[in-house]
Parts: sequence; C-alpha cells; structure tokens
Amino acid sequence: MPKLKGEQLEKICFQLLCAAGAPEDHGRIVAEHLAGNNLAGHDSHGFIRIIQYIRQIKEGVILPAAKPEIVRETPVIAQVDGHYGFGQVVAKFSAELVIDKAKKQGLGCVAMRRLRHLGRLGAWVELAAKAGCAAILFTATGGQALLCAPFGGSKRRLGTNPIAMAFPGENEGMVVSDFATSAAAEGKIRVYKARGHKLPDGWILDKEGRPSNNPNDFYDGGAILPVGGSVGHKGYCLAFMTELFGSLLSRDGFPPRPGDKQMSNSSLFLALDIERFGPLAAVKSEVSMMANYAKETPPADGFDQVLFPGEKEAKSRRERSKTGVEIEDETWNQVMALVKEYRIGEKLGQLP
Amino acid sequence: MPKLKGEQLEKICFQLLCAAGAPEDHGRIVAEHLAGNNLAGHDSHGFIRIIQYIRQIKEGVILPAAKPEIVRETPVIAQVDGHYGFGQVVAKFSAELVIDKAKKQGLGCVAMRRLRHLGRLGAWVELAAKAGCAAILFTATGGQALLCAPFGGSKRRLGTNPIAMAFPGENEGMVVSDFATSAAAEGKIRVYKARGHKLPDGWILDKEGRPSNNPNDFYDGGAILPVGGSVGHKGYCLAFMTELFGSLLSRDGFPPRPGDKQMSNSSLFLALDIERFGPLAAVKSEVSMMANYAKETPPADGFDQVLFPGEKEAKSRRERSKTGVEIEDETWNQVMALVKEYRIGEKLGQLP
Repeated sequence: MPKLKGEQLEKICFQLLCAAGAPEDHGRIVAEHLAGNNLAGHDSHGFIRIIQYIRQIKEGVILPAAKPEIVRETPVIAQVDGHYGFGQVVAKFSAELVIDKAKKQGLGCVAMRRLRHLGRLGAWVELAAKAGCAAILFTATGGQALLCAPFGGSKRRLGTNPIAMAFPGENEGMVVSDFATSAAAEGKIRVYKARGHKLPDGWILDKEGRPSNNPNDFYDGGAILPVGGSVGHKGYCLAFMTELFGSLLSRDGFPPRPGDKQMSNSSLFLALDIERFGPLAAVKSEVSMMANYAKETPPADGFDQVLFPGEKEAKSRRERSKTGVEIEDETWNQVMALVKEYRIGEKLGQLP
Repeated sequence: MPKLKGEQLEKICFQLLCAAGAPEDHGRIVAEHLAGNNLAGHDSHGFIRIIQYIRQIKEGVILPAAKPEIVRETPVIAQVDGHYGFGQVVAKFSAELVIDKAKKQGLGCVAMRRLRHLGRLGAWVELAAKAGCAAILFTATGGQALLCAPFGGSKRRLGTNPIAMAFPGENEGMVVSDFATSAAAEGKIRVYKARGHKLPDGWILDKEGRPSNNPNDFYDGGAILPVGGSVGHKGYCLAFMTELFGSLLSRDGFPPRPGDKQMSNSSLFLALDIERFGPLAAVKSEVSMMANYAKETPPADGFDQVLFPGEKEAKSRRERSKTGVEIEDETWNQVMALVKEYRIGEKLGQLP
C-alpha cells in the first residue's frame, strides 16, 4: 500500500479534476476537501471518491464547471442553486455565505438545492466554528439513495440523512459532531460483506422486514434501520426531520417525487455568531471544559477511554499530517489508471 | 381511576397554581400545558406534574410570579432570563418572541436561561408550526439532573437533553419530533422498577460501568446510556451538542459548574418562516406527502403499522378530547389532598 502526504493526495485529485473539465478553483476546493478527509481519518470520504467523481463527470451527473447561484436572498436567509455542480463547491460557497450572514446579523441560514455529493459534512461546519460560529447542517441524501426503513417499516423510504454540528473550543480546538441518522452507512455494510462478517444487531432488516445479521440481506432488497435499536423511533424522527429541513426549505423536493431519479444532497446550513450571545473566549473555554469533563469519565466495561465529539478527527489530523495516508492498492491502481488516461503523469512528478 | 375532561384537569391545575402564589396569567399557561400533554397522551408530563410544581413553589425552587425578561436583543436574536420562574411561562414567552422574529426577519433564535421544568418540548415547537414556521428546540437538562453516561463512559455526565423539531402539514396537521437523546427517560426506568420488569438491552449501565437489565442498578449509582446501542456515539454526540446549544448560548452554564446545584432547562429555540423559502401551501402539502409516504411503508416483523412523527399525539388528542383522561388513583389522591390544603374545593365544583 503506497503512503502519501496530504499535499500529494490533493495534487493528484486537483490535476485529475482539472483534466476532467473542472475549473481550477473548483478543482482546488474538491481536492482540498478529499485530502482533508483522509487526514481527518475518514478515508471513505477521501481520495477514494475521486474515482466516483471522475466517473460522474463523464456520465454528466456532476457538471464540473457549474457555479452555485443565489436564487433568493434576505439579510439572514439565502437559497442557493448548485446547478448540479460539485457538492463541495456548493457547500463551501454556502458555508462562506452563511458565516457572512451570521457575522453581520448574528444568525444566518442557507438552503442548498441541486448539488451532488457534498462530502463530509463535518468539514463545512468546521469552517463555521473556525469563524467563531456555532453551526448545524442538515443533509437529505434521499432521492436516488433511499436506503433506510422508517421505524416499524420493512422497506426503504429514507436516505441516511446525516446531521453535523460544531462549536469552537480553546486553542484552535473545536467540538464537531457528524453522523448519519441511520444505524450504519451503506459503506460499512459493504465492508462487513466483503469480509464475510456478521453485522451487529439492529443494523438491517431483510427484504421481508425481519431483523438480520447477514450483510447480503441488505443488498437483496433489505433496508438499513434507523439509529436506536429498541428506541429506533428516535433515530427515525431525526432522519425524517432532516429530510424535511434539507429538502423542503431548499425546495429541492424529496423521495416521493414520482419518477425523479436525480440525486441531490439538499441541505440546510444554520450558523449563529457566538459573540452575540456572550464573550467568544468564555464560550470557547466552556466548550473545552465540557469536552474535558466528558473525556475524564471513567471508561465503561469494554472501553479504554471516552472521546469528545471531533476528538478522533483532530488526533488523526495530527498523526497523519506527519505519517502520511496509506491508500489501499485497489484504489491506488484505479486512480493511476485515470492519471494515465488523462496523461497528467508529468504534472504530478514522482509518485510512490 | 377517575376520568376527567381536559378542561377539568386544566381548571384544577389553574386553581392550585393560583392558590400557591402564581399570577393568573402564569397559572393559565402552566395549567393549559399540563392538560394539553394529557390530551396528547403524555401523562408523564401532564396532570401528575402539578404535585411536583406545587412542592417546588413551596421550596422556593420555582418562583411562580417571576416574569421572563429579555436581557439581550437584536432583530433576529434574543436572550431571555427566566428568573427561575415556571419553565412553561418562559418557553411560551420565548416561542412567541421567536415566531415574531421569524415572521419579521425570516429567521429567529431565542436562548433561554434560568427557567425551571419547561414541560413537553413538542408543545412549544407546535406553536411555531401552527404559525407557519419550521422550528428546532434544544434543551439542556443537565445541572442537577445528570443521569447519562457519555458513550464509552461509566458515570453520569450529561442530562437526558431532549430535542424537538416541527413542520406544519396540510389540514392543520403537523409533523412533530420530540425525544430525549438518552436511550430512555428516567421516568421509564422507574416504571420498569415499580413493575419488577427487566429493562431492554442498551438502556443502562450499573455503577461499575457494566451493561445491565436491572432497573435497580440505575438507582444504585448506574447511568442511562445514550441512544444508539452499538452506535451510541451518535446519541452521545447529539446529547453533547444539545448541551452546548442549550446551555452555552443562553449563558446558563452547564454540568461542570463547580458546586452549582441549580436545575435549569436552558434552551435554544430556532424558528424559520417557511414562506421565505417557498409557498407555505406547497411546503405543507409536501410535509403531508412525506408523512403519508413513510406511513404507507409495509410494516416490519413485529409491527402493525408505521407512524409519522407526531401522529400518535394527534390521534391521542382526537380520542381523549372525546373520552377524557384517566388519572391513576395515587396521583388523584395527592392532588385532592392539595385541593383540600388550599381550600379550593368550592371553586372547582363537582369532581369525580
């Protein structure tokens, strides 16, 4: 397995995206996001995605030059139409817009529609936290990607609908929560399947609506369950409301649209300027105090420590920015085939 | 068990609250909220609470005449100090304030501090939905009420920290989500204990941090787990962020405050005026379409139907407004003792 530095991953992605038709500024945003996710430890949302994005550009699913457009705006609200460009380009544009509104008015909200995969939600709320804001991002991943059953139901009716939230802490630190409202992401089930492992209880139903531990049952018409197990009505409610916040306020539409096969990560981004509520330094200090308070909890049986939300990512960033990121051979070979196809080997210089 | 109409429950609560020192307008808000919760099927947050509130007034915990005060305000933001009055009075005041801001500016946010038990969160976001808004309410129940362990931890460090969200639907309907971010509310564990039943898996740890199904282990120094079971990091993140949103932006403080024994339901209320994002009628129709889409899912094994968030409450309201509400004898006898103590029997007329 080759091991690469963040900058190398970013450079490869950038050159590939530009060669596939992305303007440089768009290529930079997407490449930086992907490499950043590898550094943060989220390889599922990192370098590996360049293969999917290049394919989607070829298929006309992602329009790489499409620019986000503000279609409706007030001092505190905006609706942004992504025109089916890169989700990351739309998300970064919207993050900057919502931060600007929060800084000027104390509070801002941007609804995004018609955008492709926006990547790791945590990255966008982190931008708001860095600017001294508390932030919430709801993303409806429905449309084509219906994977999850409602609580008590046997069929797929909802996306994995993630939610991210962030607060800034002391010393450039922050607390960041980012999770799918389903018991598991589809990618995780895929890993269990590939390894021939049994799934934990409470992750999926088979096509008859019976609880199953066999990952194949999901791909055979089953459904992912909401977070919560016996209290899965809570995860279901969260997934349901995320669907409404993400897809209705952006006016992107949602699963029951008859015949519509478009995939869009319609989202709602809320940001609050902390300074309007109290001294930023005091709030940051309290955020860190709360993180430490949770962290110092004596571990439960089977655990060796308690983490605060976002701690794992921060730790991975510190480590991987020194050690680099291992890329599994299959991904590497596929990306190298693209490098060859687009004849950008020379621009990349020496690679592992 | 006596059976009473909603108006009767409300009248008893109102007279008791006024006799205990509440001004009429405060008594009316609290009494209406409690009876409304019984009608909505949430008896744990209904009539039974009058006993607790009267006790807390006597103890000086609730200051029944305290009026909520806006201590900081911009066109889109307000901070409200409840001065340790009734949580319901503060929540209703804040709901009206945030709706007004949303209607004028498109978006509003009110942070509340120093308020006692604000009751059922759903009731407050329902007010926003009735006014054509989408709403989110975060409540930090920490302070004295630390009951929950962080994911991987063995000791209590968090409140049950509920979140409520709402959207209006067609025909005066609405979708309302309202749940504690812990696997269970403490009251539910109390019921299992009283009945000598075993708890479901994933609800609690004993004092040594080991999973337990014995409700007594919770009261013997154990802790409630976050929502999620094997993916309890998701429920933990949600509880943690709710703590920050509720207690930091209101400047109410949070669990690690050394030596502070004050219980406050510090909260953050966000409201968005739907009309600013698109035609209200269209959004309402889509909300109902999504609710029906989920509802029509074929049931899973062991279930007979799928509900949409808030459906159970709406159904209970329709039924109980006809049939009345049964009050268990123990609660009834305690309340009747208070009626006698405050000599308000005459004001109440004939009772069951």
